[in-house]
Amino acid sequence: MEKRPAHREFFESIERKAKGFFRSARGSHDWDHTQRVLSLCLRIGKKEKGDLEILRLAALLHDIGRAAEDLSNGKICHSQAGASMAGKILKAHGIDQETIDRVIHCIQAHRFRKGAVPVSKEARILFDADKLDSIGAVGIGRAFLFAGEVGARLHNKDIEIRKTKPYTKEDTAYREYLVKLNKVKDRVFTKEGKRIARERHRFMVEFFERLNRETGGML
Amino acid sequence: MEKRPAHREFFESIERKAKGFFRSARGSHDWDHTQRVLSLCLRIGKKEKGDLEILRLAALLHDIGRAAEDLSNGKICHSQAGASMAGKILKAHGIDQETIDRVIHCIQAHRFRKGAVPVSKEARILFDADKLDSIGAVGIGRAFLFAGEVGARLHNKDIEIRKTKPYTKEDTAYREYLVKLNKVKDRVFTKEGKRIARERHRFMVEFFERLNRETGGML
Repeated sequence: MEKRPAHREFFESIERKAKGFFRSARGSHDWDHTQRVLSLCLRIGKKEKGDLEILRLAALLHDIGRAAEDLSNGKICHSQAGASMAGKILKAHGIDQETIDRVIHCIQAHRFRKGAVPVSKEARILFDADKLDSIGAVGIGRAFLFAGEVGARLHNKDIEIRKTKPYTKEDTAYREYLVKLNKVKDRVFTKEGKRIARERHRFMVEFFERLNRETGGML
Repeated sequence: MEKRPAHREFFESIERKAKGFFRSARGSHDWDHTQRVLSLCLRIGKKEKGDLEILRLAALLHDIGRAAEDLSNGKICHSQAGASMAGKILKAHGIDQETIDRVIHCIQAHRFRKGAVPVSKEARILFDADKLDSIGAVGIGRAFLFAGEVGARLHNKDIEIRKTKPYTKEDTAYREYLVKLNKVKDRVFTKEGKRIARERHRFMVEFFERLNRETGGML
């Protein structure tokens, strides 16, 4: 970062700007999610010796394209749109192009199945932080919250796994777990991310096994 | 039950009738919930030597007043309305008044904080079964699903506990846990209900402690 405005004011300004994109966000992907991802980025970034300033900017801005994606019914990809929006915001704050490019790479590459592959250390840390927020107790809560937002059922043990978009009543948290969440621990990149993922994964598996046993009359 | 129509057909007819009231139900309180409560009623009823026919009828019909409560914005109490509706349905099926009264008592007394106190064994079993479905992994899932349905946030550890109705973004699953769910194990009546409650309670406490530790950067 060649040109540095007074640091605290600069990050506060970016934060205010980013937060503005979440006014009508749903609970499963709201500003709280961004704050948790930021916190995980800094936690992992310290262990992995990542650039904490890049991480802070990338985390704050990583989901600002989500409203555009939702409004377009998924036609716009939030990581691509968000990266472009983030670039403009940082440029308007007078940030040098190299820093902007590093942040843009993180945002472009943070998606689970789509988009660029994370190459830089910071991109891998953001990817990991974002995925870690989808597993463990937090991830379980988010999966059910999202299911509630789209009008899904609580549970369907015998669900057929296939793409269901637009979302249906069958788009349960359990389906999300089978399709996506139980693979997260094998997708994260960093050592610290893997450590956190393994621990959160274990609890998540226990949760869904319990859910099947409770609903099956065994607990 | 003095007058008994062919048994299977009778219960199937009651089930069809009951299910009809759940067409526009939300996932947190849908027909699946009724089926889980029925399953728990039969499970506890066998252990506690309750009348399984009364339990089956009471379980199938216990929440049929919920749509009326939701439509009235809570002015109609679903246990009172449901009991009255159930009485009419059973009468139309030619069921004797004593059976009807026993089922009505179960439905009237199944609410957590409002309504009649459950006196009969079957009323206590229905009360327990309904409450057990709000704790453990199932209860956690339902609390987040409901939060999603009313547009709440994922979590707020520092929530101020007070009545929030109509629901706000602050009506989180964690608030529900603090206000209501963590008291369930001390409210259930039957021995088998208490056994199941203790076990589910332990897991639920673990879940919310984890949620606080994960969001607090400790896991």
